[in-house]
Amino acid sequence: MAEQKKSTGLNLKDVAIHEGFWGKYVQLVRNTVIPYQWEALNDRIPDAEPSHSLRNLRIAAGEEEGQFGGLVFQDTDPYKWLEAVGYSLAVHPDPQLEKVADELIDLIGRAQQEDGYINTYYTVKEPGNRWTNLLECHEMYCAGHLIEAAVSYYEGTGKRKLLEIACRFADYIDSVFGPEPEKLKGYDGHEEIELALAKLFKVIGNERYMRLLTFLMDERGKKPYYFIEEWKKRGGISHWQKGVSSEPDMAYNQAHKPVREQMEAVGHAVRAVYLYTAMADMAALTGDERLSTACRTLWDNIVNKRMYITGGIGSTYQGEAFTFDYDLPNDTAYQETCASIGLIFFANRMLKLEPHGKYADVMERALYNSVISGMAQDGKRFFYVNPLEVLPEACMKDPGKRHVKPVRQRWYGCACCPPNISRLLSSLGGYIYTTNENTIYTHLYINAEAKMQIGGGGVTIVQESSYPWDGEIELLLKEVPGCEFNLALRIPGWCPDAQVDVNGERVDLAPIVHNGYALIARTWRTGDAVSLKLKMPVEFIQANPLVRADAGKVAIQRGPLIYCLEEADNGSGLSGIKLDTGCVPEATFDPSFFGGAVIISGDALRDDNSDWTNSLYRPLTVRAGKAFKFKAIPYYLWANREMGEMQVWTRYR
Amino acid sequence: MAEQKKSTGLNLKDVAIHEGFWGKYVQLVRNTVIPYQWEALNDRIPDAEPSHSLRNLRIAAGEEEGQFGGLVFQDTDPYKWLEAVGYSLAVHPDPQLEKVADELIDLIGRAQQEDGYINTYYTVKEPGNRWTNLLECHEMYCAGHLIEAAVSYYEGTGKRKLLEIACRFADYIDSVFGPEPEKLKGYDGHEEIELALAKLFKVIGNERYMRLLTFLMDERGKKPYYFIEEWKKRGGISHWQKGVSSEPDMAYNQAHKPVREQMEAVGHAVRAVYLYTAMADMAALTGDERLSTACRTLWDNIVNKRMYITGGIGSTYQGEAFTFDYDLPNDTAYQETCASIGLIFFANRMLKLEPHGKYADVMERALYNSVISGMAQDGKRFFYVNPLEVLPEACMKDPGKRHVKPVRQRWYGCACCPPNISRLLSSLGGYIYTTNENTIYTHLYINAEAKMQIGGGGVTIVQESSYPWDGEIELLLKEVPGCEFNLALRIPGWCPDAQVDVNGERVDLAPIVHNGYALIARTWRTGDAVSLKLKMPVEFIQANPLVRADAGKVAIQRGPLIYCLEEADNGSGLSGIKLDTGCVPEATFDPSFFGGAVIISGDALRDDNSDWTNSLYRPLTVRAGKAFKFKAIPYYLWANREMGEMQVWTRYR
Repeated sequence: MAEQKKSTGLNLKDVAIHEGFWGKYVQLVRNTVIPYQWEALNDRIPDAEPSHSLRNLRIAAGEEEGQFGGLVFQDTDPYKWLEAVGYSLAVHPDPQLEKVADELIDLIGRAQQEDGYINTYYTVKEPGNRWTNLLECHEMYCAGHLIEAAVSYYEGTGKRKLLEIACRFADYIDSVFGPEPEKLKGYDGHEEIELALAKLFKVIGNERYMRLLTFLMDERGKKPYYFIEEWKKRGGISHWQKGVSSEPDMAYNQAHKPVREQMEAVGHAVRAVYLYTAMADMAALTGDERLSTACRTLWDNIVNKRMYITGGIGSTYQGEAFTFDYDLPNDTAYQETCASIGLIFFANRMLKLEPHGKYADVMERALYNSVISGMAQDGKRFFYVNPLEVLPEACMKDPGKRHVKPVRQRWYGCACCPPNISRLLSSLGGYIYTTNENTIYTHLYINAEAKMQIGGGGVTIVQESSYPWDGEIELLLKEVPGCEFNLALRIPGWCPDAQVDVNGERVDLAPIVHNGYALIARTWRTGDAVSLKLKMPVEFIQANPLVRADAGKVAIQRGPLIYCLEEADNGSGLSGIKLDTGCVPEATFDPSFFGGAVIISGDALRDDNSDWTNSLYRPLTVRAGKAFKFKAIPYYLWANREMGEMQVWTRYR
Repeated sequence: MAEQKKSTGLNLKDVAIHEGFWGKYVQLVRNTVIPYQWEALNDRIPDAEPSHSLRNLRIAAGEEEGQFGGLVFQDTDPYKWLEAVGYSLAVHPDPQLEKVADELIDLIGRAQQEDGYINTYYTVKEPGNRWTNLLECHEMYCAGHLIEAAVSYYEGTGKRKLLEIACRFADYIDSVFGPEPEKLKGYDGHEEIELALAKLFKVIGNERYMRLLTFLMDERGKKPYYFIEEWKKRGGISHWQKGVSSEPDMAYNQAHKPVREQMEAVGHAVRAVYLYTAMADMAALTGDERLSTACRTLWDNIVNKRMYITGGIGSTYQGEAFTFDYDLPNDTAYQETCASIGLIFFANRMLKLEPHGKYADVMERALYNSVISGMAQDGKRFFYVNPLEVLPEACMKDPGKRHVKPVRQRWYGCACCPPNISRLLSSLGGYIYTTNENTIYTHLYINAEAKMQIGGGGVTIVQESSYPWDGEIELLLKEVPGCEFNLALRIPGWCPDAQVDVNGERVDLAPIVHNGYALIARTWRTGDAVSLKLKMPVEFIQANPLVRADAGKVAIQRGPLIYCLEEADNGSGLSGIKLDTGCVPEATFDPSFFGGAVIISGDALRDDNSDWTNSLYRPLTVRAGKAFKFKAIPYYLWANREMGEMQVWTRYR
């Protein structure tokens, strides 16, 4: 049965995540993270940097006296929180939470200006200066998060109030920006509104939003560059530098070239993947082949040349940015949590554009490693930066590593990452499957019951496994229509050997695996059971030799999980450990380790330092080193015990 | 014959450096560098950043209209140039050069204010604000360089005019700073005046300068901190940040503790070693044992924990500073040329305080590696930063490596390093020997004829060798007094085996080598010939395992020279090379390589990248690699050919 391209996601309401690896996270987000973040938005977390964001809304609404607080884009924090709440309410109604959210929405409504504009910074602090610094001041970035929140809350609760607020703002933006001679020809310095407009268009169906998206997308990269003209008009004044800045670098905002001509992932990593996500959205909506090609090229550039093994991106903290091909330093990595989340958005949209296991592989890689590493196991502390190698002393004493924190923080002045994790995890049900007319794609193995439509009929699939701790996944088709359709099961790129049985009968995979999916075509019956066995050995992974930072080193991977060594298990001086890659490490499930996790241990050698006295250099004496048993834990669990060294890439012999 | 402590240097006029490794440099400085730098000071080098410094002097003297140009301490450039000229004239009279220098001195005299003050920045730009920002504005740092220039020029030419100018300024400073209640209790943010005052005191013998030095030294570290009080008085305004800055970090200026209590080398590396140099000067002048002890502790901290193998210091460009023990990153190293020079000053003073080979070893290490790497072989291009690993693309595309230049620059806006190299190399004759009543210490092996006094009589020693290309050194005693004295020959720390013959007769070294010197006591005769053979094998050097950046790597050393691999000889992808430390590399003198140099070659393996397709990560396949013949050149010669990769530390097997 022929496979069709393009697919769509499921309605979040139709996916119930069950107990298991992700069930725990979904519950944590619902029970702890969302309430905790509400406290943070209200500046009620002791020892944490205040958010100021609700106070800003009250001041903008004229209900409180005071100064604007926080960063120019502080409004996005409550918007992202509302978005997460919308997702959570979709699958888990909670009248009390809904009441709190409704009140926040009312406040946002009161902070909205007569003409539809909302932005507490400009309303409170620079009322006359709207749209004078698109480069740096992120008004459309804030608008984008408002729109995403509105769509989520509408889909989760059916309530239209926030959607109407968002539409009024979008309509106002459309009255300011556009091809008509009297309108501004600008676009945002921090992309986000583009993917939000694509969502709004899909919900509302108003062509106006599609036109605005197209306009914003197509202006990017036109000469003379809008940001440079705008910067000249401002007299070169920079919002961040509080003085005259040098001429803006267009590549930093992905505005150096028209989007269809962009071939390399450049500049601020989060902005980049938010833009590419919207490009893929637009390509799917319009069928624009040049846009799809640009998306594929950018995807390949990221994944084959600029991505950490943990699925994170952004090699430098200076500008939170991409640098160049194969430049992936471990100890100064930025790998912002938000950038990994943005890469998941991009992967998700590429999967809808053209299902291919390579997108789902990266989605899974980021999800299991660089995204959830961003949050402590208690849901109350967060990493903004996710390094692959840490020496706590360096974080304090090397100014080039000050961005690296050896322990997760309670909240950040720029708190983009914590609510980004909540909104991703609370909408995780939407990432498991996509469908088109005749195929159900299974991208992620997550315990859940999901309802979907195929060939005009309803299908309900229940997944059950201990994934990622083992690779044995059961899929039960609880409800099926009477027609033939394809069930496409992703065979992960990391998996050396997979096996599928349908109702106990082995399926020959060789002829049916294409583009990373085993496509099982049949007339399914209610009660059909599909059993997938993904072999999950411990693998020592090497990096492309062009990655200088990883030369002579390996990482440890098992299934989708990347492992790391921590000082808590291996003592200090991790750079002195050499893994014995000739041995087969042991993988053991430890039920007591943060709710249960597979721990890996194996043979290594450790530099013998006992004959070093107080000196720095001496002629080499080759010594075998001491036998040592290393212990590795999943990367996402690092820094949940005492502060110490950590590393992902380790020397080997 | 018992050895005495403390020794003094020779008069520069009494040392003639001959043809040979250093003769070439001394000539280059005289014939090229000094004239070239004069052009630079006059802003006449095309494509180079202007110096502004002579123009600033003319403006301050009221002889030209215009604005102050350059950095707040721009005056030091002509001062350092004059200091180099003074040294050069001492050994090589040049009436035309002396005339140019005399005219510059006249100009400096005209720029001096009535009360003795000289500083073109404050005179031209902020006449009312003298001494209001000692932390950042370096008025005493400039004064120090003026004093050093004056002493050099006086000793080189016998002319007192600049010395008088300097004394008037020093007298004025003494009238402003001091223990008397009406005087300021400050000290400079950038140490330098301290070591200059020690020199001035030694030349002039005026106790006033010794008292001023003592005052400035003893105030440092007292509470309440002068710099913080001063910063408060300025309303927190920073000269560099052009706005309010955060509270100054006292450790950055070595002002966090009284100098006698400082145990770790911290803060700005050049400032630190300039301070420690002055501390050693003062300890020698006063016999202050607590000061000597602090000097020894700081020395050990640098050399055993914070120094690159090339003798450079400063692990981070942020603040050009020390970071913490064993933190010696290669690709982001700062290792400023000036800091290596400062370390040589410190070593030189420690040698005078207490002759010990460990000081001379480091002096030699810095001199042959991180100092002369700072200047191109044509004497016209300079490095400010001396990295130990370079990928040119990273210098351009990784903001964290923007300080690293893959090619030497013509001149710098902050041009502290080029004239610092000239002044060191033109005074190099002063670093070879020190003497005390009964011992001549030979610290460096440099072809030269040197006259000195011992036991009341004159000694003339002629050194002759091909050092550092081989270790066979001949010392001829051309003139000796009739008394017994010790000739102390340094046996370098890098040397595994040394041999000494006097007039063809072998000397048993075992009983006479102490603290790194072979002490040969005898009644010397005119014509006595000492032959020293230092075995100079190629060594693979390993770093202390606590240096994470060098884990699993070795450097190549032969004699005092550290070697590096360059792309020009080894192709790109140097991180993929593994040296075979089981083989004995070949050392070959190549007479055509930049005037002749020993090149090292040997066996290595190189990662075979041929089976890597367009991907970043894959399971490890252990492959032996391809046999490869590596070629290493002396580090100081790097970046004299086409731009390319370079590395000092290489993987090995």
